[in-house]
Amino acid sequence: MPRFTVAILGATGAVGRQMLEVLDERAFPIETLVPLASERSVGEKVMLGKREWAVKLAEPSAFEGVDIVLASAGGSVSKALLPAAVKAGAVCIDNSSAFRMDPAVPLVVPEVNAGDVAAHQGIIANPNCSTIQLVVALQPLHAAFGLEEVTVSTYQSVSGAGQKGMEELSAQSMALFNQRPFDIEVHPARIAFNLVPHIGPFDDVGYTQEEMKLVHESRKIMKLPGLLVSPTAVRVPVFAGHAESVRCRFKQPVDPTEARAVLRAAPGVKVVDAPQRGRYPMPIDVVDRDEVFVGRIRRDLIDDHGLNLWIVADNLRKGAATNAVQIAEIVAGNAS
Amino acid sequence: MPRFTVAILGATGAVGRQMLEVLDERAFPIETLVPLASERSVGEKVMLGKREWAVKLAEPSAFEGVDIVLASAGGSVSKALLPAAVKAGAVCIDNSSAFRMDPAVPLVVPEVNAGDVAAHQGIIANPNCSTIQLVVALQPLHAAFGLEEVTVSTYQSVSGAGQKGMEELSAQSMALFNQRPFDIEVHPARIAFNLVPHIGPFDDVGYTQEEMKLVHESRKIMKLPGLLVSPTAVRVPVFAGHAESVRCRFKQPVDPTEARAVLRAAPGVKVVDAPQRGRYPMPIDVVDRDEVFVGRIRRDLIDDHGLNLWIVADNLRKGAATNAVQIAEIVAGNAS
Repeated sequence: MPRFTVAILGATGAVGRQMLEVLDERAFPIETLVPLASERSVGEKVMLGKREWAVKLAEPSAFEGVDIVLASAGGSVSKALLPAAVKAGAVCIDNSSAFRMDPAVPLVVPEVNAGDVAAHQGIIANPNCSTIQLVVALQPLHAAFGLEEVTVSTYQSVSGAGQKGMEELSAQSMALFNQRPFDIEVHPARIAFNLVPHIGPFDDVGYTQEEMKLVHESRKIMKLPGLLVSPTAVRVPVFAGHAESVRCRFKQPVDPTEARAVLRAAPGVKVVDAPQRGRYPMPIDVVDRDEVFVGRIRRDLIDDHGLNLWIVADNLRKGAATNAVQIAEIVAGNAS
Repeated sequence: MPRFTVAILGATGAVGRQMLEVLDERAFPIETLVPLASERSVGEKVMLGKREWAVKLAEPSAFEGVDIVLASAGGSVSKALLPAAVKAGAVCIDNSSAFRMDPAVPLVVPEVNAGDVAAHQGIIANPNCSTIQLVVALQPLHAAFGLEEVTVSTYQSVSGAGQKGMEELSAQSMALFNQRPFDIEVHPARIAFNLVPHIGPFDDVGYTQEEMKLVHESRKIMKLPGLLVSPTAVRVPVFAGHAESVRCRFKQPVDPTEARAVLRAAPGVKVVDAPQRGRYPMPIDVVDRDEVFVGRIRRDLIDDHGLNLWIVADNLRKGAATNAVQIAEIVAGNAS
């Protein structure tokens, strides 16, 4: 089996670190690791399993000899550097939103549209965290019942805003207990013991970028350009793990018992649904897990074509690093 | 103007304390205060403004000479004691769920159905916190556009579980920062930095009692027995203030600008809706406020008869104490 030279762009960030963990856990066939970051982190070391690698500067010349790039350093870095990586012959799996809606770039969640990887022209986009967990749960239900409409309200943890997002929740919470002042820098308002319905900039009709990602990315991944999605995205004071309250409507009537059976058989899904015994997914239970957890599966009270779900996943794992590494595995498999 | 003898049943609880504050702030015409509680609290003092009153035992004989009872000591206490209070001639405003769905008991949110108070036979029920803030915002929109359907996901603070619910969030958060063990007693699972989609017991089809209150109480208060409601109730690690992500569908097409104007003119509603300038309602901003705050007012992406809203209120104030005192004011007005 061939081994690969893999670059991690943004190797010292929250998602970059998770990528290193996931690559190690899944024993990805790496010959050489090329951790890349901005000037500030050059010279730092990162660990892949028991082996240490020095962080190098993220610049166009860094991609010489690289087979696969896993990028998670933000949209502007991806836009600036990935064309050079593609020119150098690498396949780039990009976790930023820079290329996701580009018709020439596959947007892939392996459980849903693994086949789209093959059509890439050098870049494959990794979807937004809240989209990934949504489509993993909805795709099998769509196959069974024909999805038409999704109303989704998210409960998104601060790790979605990176390491600094987590540190801010921690610092603010401690400061409040100690009655000391605190900074508001990463999140648009105090997040400790609060709710902030504002993730990403607002558009002209009052939706956030995060909300519109749920609409556009779900349609592209599921190949349902007419899918109706009504989204609300909210940041909550939880360190890791995103939750989604989802009401969906199908072409056919849906029985919750059947829906549960469909989800139990679905790849990447774990059904946790015995509420009478206190079993339903919660963020603290999904941290460091790769599955998408689904519970509170119940008949919709408005419509017998409807179904209500509570979907929880680790946004840094399946919502980012794990999904990217799964795509890398498909790329590696196609190459060998 | 006559002055009244007012008993507070559950005077030392989280809602009871808020009732005392609200009675004082609104200068309710009280001649004598009768704070009632269980044996454990007898002899404690409570303050109404600058005057101190001794807590007495909550027992049937305690209601002699009482004009108005504000009850917030749980359903079983209300069931056990309010019939005696009614027999003694008092009008009872009950914050528990014991009598809410009794057809002979008015369920009142003054901004919506103040007129129903007159029909009482001794007991008037105060609705559930999450229902109150929902109907205050929906009633004016219903009057303008004809409400048909509501999909609501709640983000409910721990004060909804009383004083002990707040103490548990505090204790668990501190314990986690100090890497010490902690208890889980009030909430069904750890609530610190977590989300718990479980408020009240589950029914046979997988809905919680809290969720079904949103359905049945909204229908009764708004006099819309056929109103379609799809509810999800979630406890979040916030001390005070409940939020709701609401998608509603009307008989007529709805323009968000018109909806905003309707809400701006509505009693008890405060519109906070300039998201581009970072203005939207958040729990920390509504604590100790009596209005229902509405923001993120926007066109639904599924349906031009639809509207999306983000509704936030102080669940101990408008969601409980303030609403009860408003009802008491109507009762006092009718008596004078």
